Amino acid sequence: MQRVLVKISYNGAQFLGFQIQNQGRTIQGYFEKILKRMHQQHVRIHPSSRTDRGVHAKAQYFHFDTHLNITPERWQHAMNSALPDDIYVHDVSFIDRDFHCRYDCVGKRYRYSIYQAEHRNPFWSQLKTFEPKALDIEAMQRAAQYFVGTHNFTTFCSQKTEVESKERTIYESRVEQTADGIDFVITGSGFLYNMVRVIMAYLLEVGKGRRSADDVPNLLAQQDRNLVPHTAPAEGLYLEKIYLAAEQLIADFGDHIQIHSKKSTQI
Amino acid sequence: MQRVLVKISYNGAQFLGFQIQNQGRTIQGYFEKILKRMHQQHVRIHPSSRTDRGVHAKAQYFHFDTHLNITPERWQHAMNSALPDDIYVHDVSFIDRDFHCRYDCVGKRYRYSIYQAEHRNPFWSQLKTFEPKALDIEAMQRAAQYFVGTHNFTTFCSQKTEVESKERTIYESRVEQTADGIDFVITGSGFLYNMVRVIMAYLLEVGKGRRSADDVPNLLAQQDRNLVPHTAPAEGLYLEKIYLAAEQLIADFGDHIQIHSKKSTQI
Repeated sequence: MQRVLVKISYNGAQFLGFQIQNQGRTIQGYFEKILKRMHQQHVRIHPSSRTDRGVHAKAQYFHFDTHLNITPERWQHAMNSALPDDIYVHDVSFIDRDFHCRYDCVGKRYRYSIYQAEHRNPFWSQLKTFEPKALDIEAMQRAAQYFVGTHNFTTFCSQKTEVESKERTIYESRVEQTADGIDFVITGSGFLYNMVRVIMAYLLEVGKGRRSADDVPNLLAQQDRNLVPHTAPAEGLYLEKIYLAAEQLIADFGDHIQIHSKKSTQI
Repeated sequence: MQRVLVKISYNGAQFLGFQIQNQGRTIQGYFEKILKRMHQQHVRIHPSSRTDRGVHAKAQYFHFDTHLNITPERWQHAMNSALPDDIYVHDVSFIDRDFHCRYDCVGKRYRYSIYQAEHRNPFWSQLKTFEPKALDIEAMQRAAQYFVGTHNFTTFCSQKTEVESKERTIYESRVEQTADGIDFVITGSGFLYNMVRVIMAYLLEVGKGRRSADDVPNLLAQQDRNLVPHTAPAEGLYLEKIYLAAEQLIADFGDHIQIHSKKSTQI
């Protein structure tokens, strides 16, 4: 058996999310259908991250195991030929059998894109979030920086989150001005359910002067989701980068950072 | 009764086209549903152009008649509040009862957008057409210019076209280099069914060296669709401008041009 690592991107607008459902378009559904046809049996794929309905991925990974004798280049070609044009396979490589996309993932970067204009732009429908109100970007930047470090994120995730620990380490959290509006960029060891969208909703409230940038440490400490009731829409959210090795994180953020590996406990 | 002129744009990706169908998303369907709710009876809208499935509009007009006493600003707000985010109402104004969006339309401009890259980009899915092969833009430009003037376009339209005359006047026809690829821009008195997409398909063949730029006059003269069998996909096509008065056309193309009005014959 050969373990195959696949790097993909997708426009989430027309998908119910990554994870396969009984019906409807899903990323997993398309790939497992292609792999089933090629193998004449079900082949499960294992992603680094399960993105929600409407969430995009500029870079996402999954792996699967195969007994077929096919080169990486031909895997890429076979999959791209069979995929709809809102999913693309960027790269295919062979990896060790003990590598696992989910457990070896030590970090992820998300980008949330907002466009600001007088009028809604139908050509950005489902690709960027529209915000016509003026935003105080400096205040948003100050608020964003409070998330850097290791915190319990109970206040900033969905109440539906079911995990043992709600502690995560954030390596960068910043607001960037773009040609059309602003992007929020956040990289962390991992993210709880809806975490980026809840933080984004809070930052937008800060930008509009309704909430205080400097209240973030207090909100984190209280560990109460009711204090931050909003969730920004999925359409502006992009999974931008997956860190599959500690070295990649250290290269971007320095060797003083705390690395969290799921490998020892979960395999 | 008041005649109301509405300027809209829409992302055609998720529509079956402008014209209402028994089921499925259409531009006409959304507006007539809103107007029916407001009037408690069916109100028909009359567009300048009926775009096909998947075709976009940066600027499109329609009119309707109403007995409601509502200001243009409030019409715009009422419609935008009820529309999905892939349609937008840019402007509403009151016009004379003898104005008709279809019969007063004296010209239209279309833009066809192609992106060139090594890899397909899922975020341009249904917004631009992907062409990985190198294109000879000078040859395409030369071919494009042959369409300017008054010609019979039988060779360059769908065989399903059912109109009395297949003669149309083209005011401009040119290829523009863009940051990501090329755009084809064409303005004319009117367009036959699939005409821009058939011309585009031919220009792409010229760009790839498979057809000759200088064969266009001969192809036009032969009036035979079988000579140009391809049709470029809808996704790259944008209705970009509607000319509702001869003065607008003269302002853009000079007072020597031939103006075609449907008004005298068709009202």
